[in-house]
Amino acid sequence: MASDSQQAPPPAVVNRLSYYLRELQQMLKSGADTTSSSQLGQRLGFSDTQVRKDLAWFGQFGVPGLGYRCEELVEQIKRILGTDRSWPTALVGAGNLGRALLGYGGFRRQGFDIVAAFDSDPAKVGGTIEGIEIRPLGELKTALSQLKIQLAILAVPIAAAQDVAMELADAGISGILNFSPTTIDLPPAVEVVGVDLAIEMEQLSFAVVNQSKKH
Amino acid sequence: MASDSQQAPPPAVVNRLSYYLRELQQMLKSGADTTSSSQLGQRLGFSDTQVRKDLAWFGQFGVPGLGYRCEELVEQIKRILGTDRSWPTALVGAGNLGRALLGYGGFRRQGFDIVAAFDSDPAKVGGTIEGIEIRPLGELKTALSQLKIQLAILAVPIAAAQDVAMELADAGISGILNFSPTTIDLPPAVEVVGVDLAIEMEQLSFAVVNQSKKH
Repeated sequence: MASDSQQAPPPAVVNRLSYYLRELQQMLKSGADTTSSSQLGQRLGFSDTQVRKDLAWFGQFGVPGLGYRCEELVEQIKRILGTDRSWPTALVGAGNLGRALLGYGGFRRQGFDIVAAFDSDPAKVGGTIEGIEIRPLGELKTALSQLKIQLAILAVPIAAAQDVAMELADAGISGILNFSPTTIDLPPAVEVVGVDLAIEMEQLSFAVVNQSKKH
Repeated sequence: MASDSQQAPPPAVVNRLSYYLRELQQMLKSGADTTSSSQLGQRLGFSDTQVRKDLAWFGQFGVPGLGYRCEELVEQIKRILGTDRSWPTALVGAGNLGRALLGYGGFRRQGFDIVAAFDSDPAKVGGTIEGIEIRPLGELKTALSQLKIQLAILAVPIAAAQDVAMELADAGISGILNFSPTTIDLPPAVEVVGVDLAIEMEQLSFAVVNQSKKH
């Protein structure tokens, strides 16, 4: 698994980039200027070799004898992840989960700015949550082009997920973060990332079951 | 990175177990009896070597010449992850996110059963969401022991996260899934897994930015 510009990095590598980014952002906050593969790895439970291998997929980053400049590496990882820019984002589905996501500070902090919200329920349309007006689904296409929205967060009931995702695809969306615990089938031009919250719970039950073995 | 019962598997390996489990569960649903490392890997974008190495951390699973029996491997992964049993779980924080999580079908399907909900707001206490009564935080300790709750889902505002987590620790919780976008500091006996929803968004922006390179 060496660096190879012809080949796409495995999803797990891209996932780890996000974790490196978070750690580096925290280091910066606490005043660190530089770090090393081993320090960065240690904070996350990865080996220094793993950190070096992962970064090597995307170029040459460290400075021999010095390690990484935190601020520089943050900028570079953001460029790789595409978050060196801000992404105007649509939220679709203004139920409990949608409302919670509109109020979730973690998105904006990383460059994802929810600028429009949509729901199929006429009773919800016209209302405002966290300063964002709820629009009818019929306005998807116009809003996407006017607000330059490329990403959408899908927080609709399972039964509606496929149809609404298809409407988003028709309206020209580039990527969908799917919170419905079901798979959706879209043209290959639309990227879909599914969020399965039970996976995090399984990591937790594993940790609890194996807790005694650590001591 | 060979199998070694003395050493704990890296978090990334445990994470992949969850993905293997989901694929196997889907295969079973569509009627498959057996599968192979390469088939399982292919569905997830991993190599067959990766699949074999990951599973080797936990024992010997395949049958030479046949591959894996799906149902057997599902049972074994569930045992490893600790989800071969049901986990009575507490939800703490009955705001929008908490309400959404109470209605999220994905937890129960994998064995996490929210049996009690708590909030510090007297206006919310006594109300019922998805059939679960909201209790005051003061009842944590009693409820945990009566309902044999070991896991909690923390969905409170950032400012309250550390204090409420500490209350959960004092009440005897074993593990916390933390949805507040902040780190919490607890005694080592309590396992904490943090959910950072922006990481999934970063995977999406990466996919969209690199979409053109795929074709």
